[in-house]
Amino acid sequence: MEAVQSSVDMLWIMLGAMLVFFMHAGFAMVETGFTRSKNTLNILMKNMITISLGSILYFIVGYALMFGPSSFGLIGTEGFALSGVTDIGFFVFQAVFAATCATIISGAVAERMHLTAYILLTVAMTAIIYPVVGHWVWGGGWLAEIGFIDFAGSTVVHLTGAVAAFIAAWKIGPRLGKYSGKTVNTIPGHSLPLGALGVFILWLGWFGFNGGSTLAADPALVPPVIANTLLAASAGVLATAGYTRLRYGRIDGTLTMNGALAGLVGITAGAANVSFLGAILIGLIAGIIMTEAVHLLDTKIRVDDPVGAVSVHGIAGVWGTLALGFFDVNGGLLYGGGAEILGIQAVGVLAVIAWASLSTGAVLLLVSVVTPLRVTAEEEETGLDFAEHGSQAYSMQDVLRGSSGRTDNFADRLNQLGEERSASGKA
Amino acid sequence: MEAVQSSVDMLWIMLGAMLVFFMHAGFAMVETGFTRSKNTLNILMKNMITISLGSILYFIVGYALMFGPSSFGLIGTEGFALSGVTDIGFFVFQAVFAATCATIISGAVAERMHLTAYILLTVAMTAIIYPVVGHWVWGGGWLAEIGFIDFAGSTVVHLTGAVAAFIAAWKIGPRLGKYSGKTVNTIPGHSLPLGALGVFILWLGWFGFNGGSTLAADPALVPPVIANTLLAASAGVLATAGYTRLRYGRIDGTLTMNGALAGLVGITAGAANVSFLGAILIGLIAGIIMTEAVHLLDTKIRVDDPVGAVSVHGIAGVWGTLALGFFDVNGGLLYGGGAEILGIQAVGVLAVIAWASLSTGAVLLLVSVVTPLRVTAEEEETGLDFAEHGSQAYSMQDVLRGSSGRTDNFADRLNQLGEERSASGKA
Amino acid sequence: MEAVQSSVDMLWIMLGAMLVFFMHAGFAMVETGFTRSKNTLNILMKNMITISLGSILYFIVGYALMFGPSSFGLIGTEGFALSGVTDIGFFVFQAVFAATCATIISGAVAERMHLTAYILLTVAMTAIIYPVVGHWVWGGGWLAEIGFIDFAGSTVVHLTGAVAAFIAAWKIGPRLGKYSGKTVNTIPGHSLPLGALGVFILWLGWFGFNGGSTLAADPALVPPVIANTLLAASAGVLATAGYTRLRYGRIDGTLTMNGALAGLVGITAGAANVSFLGAILIGLIAGIIMTEAVHLLDTKIRVDDPVGAVSVHGIAGVWGTLALGFFDVNGGLLYGGGAEILGIQAVGVLAVIAWASLSTGAVLLLVSVVTPLRVTAEEEETGLDFAEHGSQAYSMQDVLRGSSGRTDNFADRLNQLGEERSASGKA
Repeated sequence: MEAVQSSVDMLWIMLGAMLVFFMHAGFAMVETGFTRSKNTLNILMKNMITISLGSILYFIVGYALMFGPSSFGLIGTEGFALSGVTDIGFFVFQAVFAATCATIISGAVAERMHLTAYILLTVAMTAIIYPVVGHWVWGGGWLAEIGFIDFAGSTVVHLTGAVAAFIAAWKIGPRLGKYSGKTVNTIPGHSLPLGALGVFILWLGWFGFNGGSTLAADPALVPPVIANTLLAASAGVLATAGYTRLRYGRIDGTLTMNGALAGLVGITAGAANVSFLGAILIGLIAGIIMTEAVHLLDTKIRVDDPVGAVSVHGIAGVWGTLALGFFDVNGGLLYGGGAEILGIQAVGVLAVIAWASLSTGAVLLLVSVVTPLRVTAEEEETGLDFAEHGSQAYSMQDVLRGSSGRTDNFADRLNQLGEERSASGKA
Repeated sequence: MEAVQSSVDMLWIMLGAMLVFFMHAGFAMVETGFTRSKNTLNILMKNMITISLGSILYFIVGYALMFGPSSFGLIGTEGFALSGVTDIGFFVFQAVFAATCATIISGAVAERMHLTAYILLTVAMTAIIYPVVGHWVWGGGWLAEIGFIDFAGSTVVHLTGAVAAFIAAWKIGPRLGKYSGKTVNTIPGHSLPLGALGVFILWLGWFGFNGGSTLAADPALVPPVIANTLLAASAGVLATAGYTRLRYGRIDGTLTMNGALAGLVGITAGAANVSFLGAILIGLIAGIIMTEAVHLLDTKIRVDDPVGAVSVHGIAGVWGTLALGFFDVNGGLLYGGGAEILGIQAVGVLAVIAWASLSTGAVLLLVSVVTPLRVTAEEEETGLDFAEHGSQAYSMQDVLRGSSGRTDNFADRLNQLGEERSASGKA
Repeated sequence: MEAVQSSVDMLWIMLGAMLVFFMHAGFAMVETGFTRSKNTLNILMKNMITISLGSILYFIVGYALMFGPSSFGLIGTEGFALSGVTDIGFFVFQAVFAATCATIISGAVAERMHLTAYILLTVAMTAIIYPVVGHWVWGGGWLAEIGFIDFAGSTVVHLTGAVAAFIAAWKIGPRLGKYSGKTVNTIPGHSLPLGALGVFILWLGWFGFNGGSTLAADPALVPPVIANTLLAASAGVLATAGYTRLRYGRIDGTLTMNGALAGLVGITAGAANVSFLGAILIGLIAGIIMTEAVHLLDTKIRVDDPVGAVSVHGIAGVWGTLALGFFDVNGGLLYGGGAEILGIQAVGVLAVIAWASLSTGAVLLLVSVVTPLRVTAEEEETGLDFAEHGSQAYSMQDVLRGSSGRTDNFADRLNQLGEERSASGKA
C-alpha cells in the first residue's frame, strides 16, 4: 500500500513539475506581448535559454547547494550532479522552480539588456543566488529554523527574482524614449492576445506551483490549496479591474492581466495556511498594491520595468509573505495570535532582499567587466531581434500582401500609388 | 487503502479542474481570433473577468444553490461561502464549470455589448441562472429525479450558456454592418491561428471536462469517456470539413474548427453512456447540424453571433442530449429500448430552454434599467478596445516598421511617398 | 490494492494521452509560425484534420494492425474497431501517438502540397505505414524479438514520420522561389512567437510522450524518464544556441527552437535507459547534428523542408536510436558492453527507413493517379489559404486601421494619400 501511495505522490509531483515547466511558455508569452515587436525574438530566446540553462545548472550545482546537508544553515554542500540523490521527482519539480525565479528578470530588463550579460546573470541566479535562498527556507537553513513560512515561494521564488530584476533594471537604465525630461512615456506592448494567453498559462501553471508544493497528493491539503489559488487570482483580477476603473476611469488591460499574477504571487506563501476568505482578501489587496507599485516605479522611482515584473513578483511577493502574519489560521493576528509570525516573516523578507540585491549587484559588476550589460543605442533603436539574432520575429510584409489574392489590399494600393506617382512624375 | 483511493480520486478531479480552468484560455483565444482586432482587448477582458467573477460568486452563492439540500427539487439552500462543505476538490471542479457556462455568452455578444452590462449578466449567470439548472440535474433536483441524463453538461453547461447567449445577442442586435438590407455580410475574424489554438486548448480541456465528470479515477469508466471524447471531436472535424467541401466547394476554416467543438459539445451528455461507434456518429451529426444552424441563424433568423456560440453550444448541445434517446447503450432506441429516454431528455431540454431564456430575458431587462446593454454606434465603430479601455490590443505600427532595420518596408515607403508627393505638390 | 494501483496507472496513461494530444497544438503552432501567412489557415487545417483522421482510422484499422496477434512478426491481425480490445486507455494513448507520426509530414510539405493529396497520405500513414512499424517494435514484431530498443519512439514515431516527410517533400519539389539557380533563398516564417509557443507546447507534451510510455506510474522509473527529457531538451537548446553563435556569429532563433525539439527526439528512444549525463550528451549532439542537417538538406541535397521536420525528427531520431549503442547503461559501448546494441539499433533504423520510404513512395504514386500532389503555381503564388479555403488567416486591414481611433495610422494616411493624389490628378 505504501508503494501505491508513493505512485500517487510521484504522479502528483510530476504533474506539478510539468505545469511549472509550462509557466515558462506563459512568461515567454506575457513578456513578448507586453513589449515591442522588434525585440520579440530576443525575449523568446531569453526565456527559452533560461529554462534550459536553469535546468542543467540546477542539476549540476543548484540542487546540491539548496538541498544538500547544511553548512551552518547557510548553504548545502552535497549532491552535485545529483550524486547520491534518490528522489529524482523532487529534483525535477525544484529544477523548473529554479528557472522560474530566473526568468522573472528577463521581463524587467527586456528590450535593452545584452543577451550575453543576461545569460551570465541567469547562470548566477540558477546556480547560486536562488539556491542559497532556497536553502535558507526549504533546505533546512536558518530561516526554516526560526519558523519562516513560505509555502510555495512568494519570497523564495518571486521576491528573489523580483529583487534581482529591480537591481538589473535599475543598473542598466530605462529604455530609450521611456523618459523625456519630466515626461514619462508609455511604450505599449505589441500583442495583448499573446499577453493574455501568457497570463492564462501562468495561472494554470500556478495550480502546479502551489498544488505541487504539497509534495504529496494529500486529499485534505491539496484541494484547499488549489481553491485558494483560484480564489486569490480571481480576486486579483477583480480588484485591479475595479481599482483601475475607479482611478483611471477605465478597466486597464495590462494591469488587470497583471492583477491575476499579483493575486497568484500573493497567495503563494500562504496557500496552505489561510482560509478561503483570507485568500480572497490577499488577492484583492495584492491587485491594488501592485497597481500602485507599477505607478510609483514608473513615475517616481523611475526604474523602467516593461512588463511590471518587479511590482507583480516583488511587491505582491512581500505582501503575500507578510500577509501570513495576519491571515495564518494558526496564529495570525486576525486569528488571535500575536505579532510573532509577522515579525518572523519580516525578517525573512528583509534577509532575502539583502542577499538578492547584494549578490545580484556583485554579479552584475563582475559581468560588466566581461561584456557590456546593455546593447548600444543604435542596436536598441534597430531592435534586439536584428542586432542580436540578425532576424525579425514577424514577416508582416507577407501578411500585408494578404492571402486572399484580392487586389484592394494595402501592399497593392501602395505599389499602385507609387507607380501612378512615378508615372505622373514622368509625364 | 481507502485513503490511497481517495488520493487518486482527488488527483483526478484536480487534474480535471485544471483542464477545465484552461478552457477559459481556449474560449479567450477562439473569441479573439474570430472577431476583429479593434475589439480584442475587450473580449480578452470579458473572458478573464468571467472566470474571476464566476469563481468568487460560485464560492459565495452558486455552489450552495446548486448542491445544497434541495428545496422542492428546485434549488439548493445551504453551503453559502462553502460553510459546512467538506469536499473542496468537488467545489473547485464545479466552480470552473460554472464560469465556462457564463463565458459562452461573451462570444455571441462580442464586438458590441457594453462591458458593464456584460459583467452584470455574468453575475446573474454564475450566481443564479446556471446553479438552478445545475441543481435540477446534478444537485438532486427534479430533472435528476425523473431520470434526465446529462453526464458532463451538454444541457447543463452548454445549452444553458447558449440560450442565454442567444437571448442576449438577439436583444442587443447585430453588429453594425452585419446586415445591409437583404445582404448578409461576413465579418471575418482577425487571427485564425489564435482561433485554432483556442480550439486545441478547448479540446484538451474537454478531456478534463468529460473525464473529470466521472468524479473518480475509475479505470473501467474513465478511458472509454476519454476515447469517446476524442472520437466525437475528430468526427465533428471530419464531418464539417467534408460537409463544407460538398456544400460550399471548399473546406471552410472556421466552420471546421467549430466542428471540433460541436463534436465535443455533442458527446458531453453521453460520454459515459454510448459506444465508440455511437460517439463517432454523434460527432458526425453534430458537425453537420452545427454548420446548418450557423447558416440558418446568420441568414434567416438574423441573430448575429460572431463566433457561432449558439450553434456550437446550443444546437449541438440539444442534439447531444437527445442523442442519448437513440445511442444510450442501456435503453436507447437503437439498443432495443423504447422512447422513454428520448422523452425524458426532451423534457429536460425544454425545461432548460424555458428557464434560461426567461431568466436571461428578465436579467437583461433589469440590467438595461441600470446601464445601456450596448455601446454607442460611435464606440462600436471605433472599437471597444479604445472605447472601453482607452487602448488597443496590437501596436502594429511597430511591427510594420519592422525589426530588421531594412528601409524597404511599408512605413518608410509610405512616408517617402507622402514626402515626394508633398515635394512635387510644392514644386 | 491492485484495483487502486490500476487506478493510478490508468490516470498516468490518460494524463500522458492528453499531453500527447496537446502536441498537435504544438505542431500546428510551430508549422504556422515557421511558414508564410498566406498558407496559415491551410497548415492549421492540415494539422486539425490529421489528428481527427488519425484518431478515427487508428480506431478502425491502425490499432489492430499494430497490437493485434502477430502474423509472422510483420503485422497484427485482430482488433479492428477495437473489437475484443479491453485496455481502452492504452488505445487512446496509442491513437494520439499515431497522429503525431503523421503530422510530422505536414510541416515538410507545407505551402505547396495539395490538401486532398495530403489527406490521402495521412490516411495511409495512420492506417498502415505507421502501424506496421509500431507492430515490429512495440507490437511484438520481429524488431522487438531481436532486441531493438526504442522506448518512446525516436524511430517508431519520429523517424517514420520524417522519412515519409522527406520522400513527400522531395517528390513534390521545393516551394517556388526557394531556389533560383545556385542561390538558396531563405523564406522566413511569419510569426516566431507562435513558433516558440509551439515549441513550448511540444516540450510539455513530450513529458507525456516519454513519461506515459512507461505505461504505469512506476515511482522508480517515471521521474528519471522525465528528468532525462528535461535535461536533453535543455541541452539541445544550449547546443544549438552555442553552435549557431560560433558558426554564424549569432544565436539563430528558429534553429535554437528546433534545438529543443532535436534534443527531445534524441532522448525519446533511450529516456528509460540512459543516465542524466547521457541524456545531456545525447541532447547536445542532437542539437548540433540537427543544425548541420538543416544546412545540408537546404543547400546540398536541396530538398525544401520549410520547418526543418526531416532534420529534427529524422536525423535526431536516427541519432537518438543509435545513441543507445553507446549510452545504454545496460550494455552500451561506454558502459563496458560490446557493439551488439549498436548493431541491432542500426538494423532497426535501416529497416524502418526502407519500409517508410518505399511505402510512402508507393502511396504517393497511387495518390498522384487520383489527384495532383501539388497545387498549381498560381495557387501557390496566391497562397493556399485562398486557393484551398477561399479565405485568409488574418484580417490585417482591420489591425492596420487600428483600434485607437487615432488618425495618424497607416490606413488613413494611405487613403488620404490616394485621395490627395486623385484630387491633384483631377486638378
